[in-house]
Amino acid sequence: MSTELRIIPITGIGEIDPGIDLGVLIYKALQEQQLTLEAGDVLVVTQKIVSKAEGRLVNLETIEPSEFAKAFAERNQKDARHVEVVLRESKRIARMDRGVIISETYHGFICANAGVDESNVEGGEFLTLLPVDSDASARRIRGRLQELQYEQQPLDIAVIISDTWGRAWRNGQVNMAIGIAGMEAMADYRGQHDAYGYEMRASMIAVADELSSAAELVMGKIDRVPVALIRGYRYTPAEGTVHTLTRDSATDMFR
Amino acid sequence: MSTELRIIPITGIGEIDPGIDLGVLIYKALQEQQLTLEAGDVLVVTQKIVSKAEGRLVNLETIEPSEFAKAFAERNQKDARHVEVVLRESKRIARMDRGVIISETYHGFICANAGVDESNVEGGEFLTLLPVDSDASARRIRGRLQELQYEQQPLDIAVIISDTWGRAWRNGQVNMAIGIAGMEAMADYRGQHDAYGYEMRASMIAVADELSSAAELVMGKIDRVPVALIRGYRYTPAEGTVHTLTRDSATDMFR
Repeated sequence: MSTELRIIPITGIGEIDPGIDLGVLIYKALQEQQLTLEAGDVLVVTQKIVSKAEGRLVNLETIEPSEFAKAFAERNQKDARHVEVVLRESKRIARMDRGVIISETYHGFICANAGVDESNVEGGEFLTLLPVDSDASARRIRGRLQELQYEQQPLDIAVIISDTWGRAWRNGQVNMAIGIAGMEAMADYRGQHDAYGYEMRASMIAVADELSSAAELVMGKIDRVPVALIRGYRYTPAEGTVHTLTRDSATDMFR
Repeated sequence: MSTELRIIPITGIGEIDPGIDLGVLIYKALQEQQLTLEAGDVLVVTQKIVSKAEGRLVNLETIEPSEFAKAFAERNQKDARHVEVVLRESKRIARMDRGVIISETYHGFICANAGVDESNVEGGEFLTLLPVDSDASARRIRGRLQELQYEQQPLDIAVIISDTWGRAWRNGQVNMAIGIAGMEAMADYRGQHDAYGYEMRASMIAVADELSSAAELVMGKIDRVPVALIRGYRYTPAEGTVHTLTRDSATDMFR
C-alpha cells in the first residue's frame, strides 16, 4: 500500500563558509524547525552549498585561459577564464555549439559547463566546481547526522546531493542526483508481473533523480532553501552510489 | 516562504474501459478517500489509464508489418507487428540501435518506442498508443473535475498527464509530463537576482516534469496507483501546454 509523502523545506541554513561542517548545520536547522529525523527520511541537499562547504571554489583572477578557451569565449561573448575552468573540469566535450559546452566530467556526468557555476561568494569573482566525490560528500553528511541524532544506534536515513541540469530534447532544467548515500539509486521492478500477468520490461526507475526533482519543488531558486526533507518514501537501504545512474559509453546512444 | 508539499496516492481507480469518463472516475476515487479538491491542487494522471480510457489501443492481430519492420524485428528478436506500430507512431527515427528505437512522435516527443506500450487489456495482445493530444486529455479531465467539484465557480486546479521515459546519458527512467492543463509547464526565474545580486542565468525549471517525477514516487509500478494528488505547490496558473517543454530542432543539440 502506498502512503502519503511529505516534502518539507529546511530553511535557516544561512551562509556557508568553506570548511564548515554541513552535517552540523543541517542538524541545527532541523532542530530549529522542531524536526527530528526518523528512519526512512531522505535529505536532499543542493550541490551549491556542498561545493562551498568543501571549498570547491575558484577565483577567476587566478586563471590563465588557454588559446582554445580564449577563441571560444571570444566567438561567444563569454569570459575566457570561465571557459578555461569548464575545460579543466571536463574529461570529454560532447557538444560545443551556440556558446554552450556540454561535457562529460571526471565523475562521468554529462552536463552543461561541467557543472561549473557562478558563485554567491562575496568579495571577488568565484566559480563553484562540483564536489570531487559527491557520493563521499553525501556519506559524510549522512554519517554526521546519524552521529548527532543517535549516538548508539545509527538511524536508517538517506542523503542525496542534487544539482540543476538541462536535458536532451526537453526545455527547462530539473534537479538530478549527483551524490547518494544510504539508498539504492534505482527501484527495480524487472521480472515482476503487473495485475494481468505481464512481465514488466522497462522498469528501472531512477528514484534518486525523482527525489531530487521532488525536492526542487520546495527549494525554488529565490527562496534560498538549500535542503529538503522527504518523509514517507520507502527506499531500498544500501550504501548507494550515483554511478548506478551514469550510463557507460557502451549503452549510451547519445554521446 | 516555501511551504510543505504533500503527495497523496489516489487508489481505487479500478479497471479502465475504453470510453469511460476519467474525470468522474478520479472524482469518485477522491471522494472514497475523503479528499476534497482545493485551489492549487495538482493531479498527476498516468498516461496508461488515459490512453485506455480514450481507446488508444491497437490489436496486434490487425497489424501487417512492413518489410522494414520485419527485418529490424528479426535482427533483434522483436515482434514485427509491435515494431510496425512503433514506426507508424513515429515522425522521425532519432536512433535505431541494439534493438531500441528512439523516435520523435507526431507530438514532438522524443522517447523510446514512440511511447507505444504493451497493454494490460485482457482477451488479446494489445498495444497502447499515446493520447492523440495529451494537453486536450488533461484539459478534459480538469474541466470535468471542476464541473463536479463546484458548478458555479471553477476551481483553480492543474492536471498533468505523465509517462515513464528513459533519458540520454542517465540510467533508469523517470516520469515526465506529456500533457498539461491549468498551469505553466515551467517556472521562470530569469532576470531575478539571488541573495548576492547575481542575476540568475539558467533558471527555467521544468516544474511539470518535476511534479510528474514526484508523483511517481507514490505510484510505483506494482502498487497500481494511477493518480497522485500534489498539494501545497504554488504553480503559475495558465492554460498550459506540454509543448513549452519540447525543444524545437533549432535549439536541440542531440537530435
